[in-house]
Order: sequence, then C-alpha cells, then structure tokens
Amino acid sequence: MTATTLTVALDERSYPIHIGQGLLSSFDLATVVTGPAALIVTNDIVAPLYLSRVTALLPDRDLQQVILKDGEQHKTLQAVAGILDALANARAGRDTTVIALGGGVVGDIAGFAAACYMRGVPFIQVPTTLLAQVDSSVGGKTGVNHPRGKNLIGAFHQPRLVLIDTETLSTLPDRELSAGLAEVIKHAAIADGEFFHWLEANVDSLLKRNADALGYAIRRCCEIKAAVVAEDERESGKRALLNFGHTFGHAIENSLGYGEWLHGEAVAAGMVMAAELSELPGDARQRLHNLIERAGLPTEPPPVAADKLRAAIGIDKKIIGKRLRFILLRELGEAFIDDNISEDRLSRILDHAKP
Amino acid sequence: MTATTLTVALDERSYPIHIGQGLLSSFDLATVVTGPAALIVTNDIVAPLYLSRVTALLPDRDLQQVILKDGEQHKTLQAVAGILDALANARAGRDTTVIALGGGVVGDIAGFAAACYMRGVPFIQVPTTLLAQVDSSVGGKTGVNHPRGKNLIGAFHQPRLVLIDTETLSTLPDRELSAGLAEVIKHAAIADGEFFHWLEANVDSLLKRNADALGYAIRRCCEIKAAVVAEDERESGKRALLNFGHTFGHAIENSLGYGEWLHGEAVAAGMVMAAELSELPGDARQRLHNLIERAGLPTEPPPVAADKLRAAIGIDKKIIGKRLRFILLRELGEAFIDDNISEDRLSRILDHAKP
Repeated sequence: MTATTLTVALDERSYPIHIGQGLLSSFDLATVVTGPAALIVTNDIVAPLYLSRVTALLPDRDLQQVILKDGEQHKTLQAVAGILDALANARAGRDTTVIALGGGVVGDIAGFAAACYMRGVPFIQVPTTLLAQVDSSVGGKTGVNHPRGKNLIGAFHQPRLVLIDTETLSTLPDRELSAGLAEVIKHAAIADGEFFHWLEANVDSLLKRNADALGYAIRRCCEIKAAVVAEDERESGKRALLNFGHTFGHAIENSLGYGEWLHGEAVAAGMVMAAELSELPGDARQRLHNLIERAGLPTEPPPVAADKLRAAIGIDKKIIGKRLRFILLRELGEAFIDDNISEDRLSRILDHAKP
Repeated sequence: MTATTLTVALDERSYPIHIGQGLLSSFDLATVVTGPAALIVTNDIVAPLYLSRVTALLPDRDLQQVILKDGEQHKTLQAVAGILDALANARAGRDTTVIALGGGVVGDIAGFAAACYMRGVPFIQVPTTLLAQVDSSVGGKTGVNHPRGKNLIGAFHQPRLVLIDTETLSTLPDRELSAGLAEVIKHAAIADGEFFHWLEANVDSLLKRNADALGYAIRRCCEIKAAVVAEDERESGKRALLNFGHTFGHAIENSLGYGEWLHGEAVAAGMVMAAELSELPGDARQRLHNLIERAGLPTEPPPVAADKLRAAIGIDKKIIGKRLRFILLRELGEAFIDDNISEDRLSRILDHAKP
C-alpha cells in the first residue's frame, strides 16, 4: 500500500491525514512542528516501541515527554493536570507543539491538555492503535472521563496533522485490533452500505493484519469521518451520527468501571443494542450482529443490572433536556437521530440485555 | 443613567452587553436561559448580597449553585473541578446554563468550567465588580492560574450575555473600586486619548461612585473592548494590546503569590513600568503615573527582587519563542506590540523597580 493523504476541510483549521506504512521512519515532521519545542505524550506500552522513532524525526527540537499509564481508567482530569504541569515547568510557550503518540486515550488526554494550555497550543496526533487511526484521532474531540460519565469534560481542539503509520498495528494486541474493528464497522453501518459489504468479505483479512486490507479500511473510515466533521465540526447535527452504539457503549463502560472493557468492545455491544432499538428491515440486524461477532467482539452487554445501565444513560451527553436521544439505523449504511425514544421502548432493550 | 445595550460582534457567537442600574431586579433573564436548568457560580462575599436577586429572575428553572471562596488564590484547576463535579452530580445536560455572578475570578473560573463541561455549555456573565464590568466579563477569555503563571490554563468561551447592573458597585470595597479603575485607565491609555482626558477630569467623581460617571466609563470600556475582540477574538494580533501593563502585572502577582495584590493593583504598577519601557514623548508618562496615583493605585512594584520578577516574566504567555514581547504606548491613546525588547532594556526597568 502506498501512502495517501486526506484533508479535513475546516477553513483555517483544515489539516491533513497522512496514512502509510513506515511513515514514522520517513515523515518530515519538523515542517509541521514550527516552534522550537514539543512535548510528546505517550504511555508506558507505546513508549518503548515507538517513542524513539518520533524523537528521531525532530532532531533539532527541544523535546519533553510525559509517559502516562495505559488504560481508559487513567483518562482523568488528573492526567491532564500532570501534562499541564510538565508544560508549565518546561516554561513552554504558545508555540510549543503537543504530540500525542498512542491510542485513543493518549490522544484524548493530550489533546485536551493542548486545548487548555495557554488557551490552546498546536497539537499533532500520531495514533498507534486501529481505533485511534480510524476514529478518535480525527475530528478534534478531546477530553477525559468523570466518575459520572464518559468524556464529560473536554474541548474541541483540532490537530494540525494526523500521522498514521499502519506499521504500528504490527505490535497491537489482538484484543485491541478487534476493538478498533468495532469503530470500522460503525463507520460502515452509519454511512456506507458498500463498505459494510466489503467488511463482510474482508474481516478475516483484517484480523490477519493484511496490510492492504487495513490500509483500505483506515482510509475509508478517515474519509467518512473527515466528511462528517467538515460538515458539522461541533456536533450541532449530523456529527452525532458517529455516536451510533455509543450511548449504550458509554453506559456499559461507566457501569463496569473504566478499563474493564475496551471502548471498542463496549461500542460493539452498544451497536447491537442500538440495532435492536432501530427495528431494522430484513436481515440487517443479524448481519451487523454476525460481523461484530466475526470481528471477535461482544454482541451483548456484560452482566450488569439494567437499572445500572439506565442510570448511566441518564447522564449521557447525547441526552438533551433529559429526553432520550439515540442514533438508530434505517438500513446498513444509513443512520438517523431519533430524539423521541420512549422509556418503554428503551426498557425492553435494557431488560432484554439483563443477565 | 438609562440602560444601554452594546453588541460583541462575533457572527454566530455574537452577544449583547446590557448596562444599567437595577438590571438585577428587572431584567428578563429567562429569555436567555433557554434550557430547563442553570448553575449559578458565585463566591462567599457576593452570595449574601446578590444571589437571591438572580434566583428571583429565574423562578421556573431548576437552579443549582456553587459558592467559591473569594480571592485570586482560589482561581485554580481544583475550583473548576468542583464546578464540573456539581454539574455532573446534578446530571446537567448540554442545555444547562452556567451563570457567573461575581468579579473576575468567579467569571474566569465559571467560564472555564462552562467551556469544559460536555465540551461547552451556555454561559452568562453577571459581573459585580468594576474590574469585571469593564474588562474580564467581555471577550470570552476564561481560565485559572498555575503556580508557574497567571491564566496559564484556560479556554476561549464566549458568554451568551453580559449583564451589568451598576448598582452592584454600591457594595464594592474602595480597594476593589480602585483596582477596577486600573483597567479603565488601561482602556483609555491604549485606545482613546480623549477618554484619557475625560478620566483626568472625572477620576474624583468615579471614586465618589457618581452613577453617571461610572455608567459612562463602563460603557466606553465595553465599547473599546468589544471592538477589539470582534476584530481579533483569539488574540492573533490586535487583541494583545489589551494586555498593556499585564506582563509586568502578572509577574508581580506571581512573585508575590496570588491574592496579595489585587489584579488591578498589579496592572497599575505594571502600566507605569510599561510606560517607562515605552519612552513616551512629553509628559505622557507622568500623566499616566499621576492618574494611576489619583485613582488610589500603586505606581511601583512591591518590594520583590528583580530576578524574581524576571523569572516570572519568563513564563508569561505573551512571550513567543522566548523572545521578549511587550505592549508599549506610542502616546496616551495608542498602543503597539514590540516583540523585540532587549534583555538590557528590560533589565533597566526591573533594576530601577528593585526595592
């Protein structure tokens, strides 16, 4: 697979997404890090694998690093405070670039710190997990969890660049590869029926880490996401469709405690629940269920009591004025917002899910 | 004085500033608080005086309150975390409005919490100090201090409304009235020589809290600030002029410890230092010095060692790439950015200031 470049079109905040194998060994990162200094934020799993490659791309810069603990349970305001301390202690100026090297958790934390330091410093995403490459590194959503809810604290802060080296997937654990596939399936389910077909035909190649298949899936997801974000940066409308499966998914994560299930796993089970709520025609629900299962992902929520899930949904960001708002599917490849879900209809899904 | 309305013109983020006596007893706040719930953030000094007036304006809303401790030393990330906890615990939705009732510290903290909760909820400023009414409540700068620097952590988050009831100044301590006059003098010094003249003629009326004089000064400052912010919301250029006196001022606050001197007091001494650095023609420096003195404000920094001030300036946000950048005056009523100040030139000012 050759390198590709896409653009997220947001006027003066537009930025490129570069996708290719081995970019961490060849990309001219110094042209994007315009100031004299950068802070690399990564975690204790990714640092030994890839940190030296990033530092090698910036030989003439004053580099600092913050190494977070791996895991969603560490996506907290404290972690952000630690990065802000590091920036302040390094006397970082407005022209210091924050570089996130890692998965979605690293990107969300580092991006939020970049948004807050001096009311916003430049930010670069170098996603190393499939989930981050196909979803969380694109679009400028940053933030951390609160005990009461997922991503409850955050900011919109667009990166200057998303640099996706698909080679980093070679070191990704199987479980995380599958979790990333959940967001790949989501993109297809909400926006592209043909891509969904392609996934049904190629899910085994993806699980075997076929480079061409992974490259194509990543590009297609980034294209879909970039188009949605360009149309609705701040989620006043269409962007909410990207949350398909996420209301249930966030409730699962919150009920279990962050870090028990991976985000993608919770979204996978959440998509099946949302598909049930969608009352899809024909075999669409079953096809989604099967694809999720073949990707090595859970198709039902963990044994958590329904009222715990319901309570967790009560605080979900996607509820406006306490009405129940869900992203549903019309068919495989088309999603819509339904903000008139009755408690009853929801209860049937939740009780059905009850262990 | 009759009520006036100005507009901060920022396209879809435009908002009105209402200025008038007794607005807290008469304004139809419910038309601006469109959702079912609001969180009022205030402090332990302001709450007993004015909180009931605000709650009375919103009889049909689900109201929560957070009462902060008074003082710049409490403008911390922890205070913001406390407000975020209150919002999450109240299961506040995206349509919950955060209302800041108090001075600049309350507005900065509450505004930053509003910016971060669910990546941004509606926000209203009800400033009750002169400083907040003429400066900090307008323009969307929010944030908190870090031990290493003033306002180092924050966001741009514009309010939906700024509601200025000049009657609240009747309960303002003399020291805080003077501190507010520092920012009034700043607006005149950087943007309006005629207004500076007017201040020389009317500073005694202002100190005696003449309602017409205060109303005029507040309006004029809001006009100047609204025009600057409309032109340069995110301080990529002209908006930096509003920081006249603030590089030295922030260094003074940081060196003394937050809360020792009021922000306006530090800015007052900072303006005299910046005027010295400006090498102004004629008696301009002396006139600025005299007006600041007549307003009951310090004209020189407190007894802090020059190297402590210098170190504090090193982390100042207005330094780009460690070059020294200052806002200077060409004359009374015209400011400019000089980002080529030599260490030597700065040292002369700092050493001169040395006790």
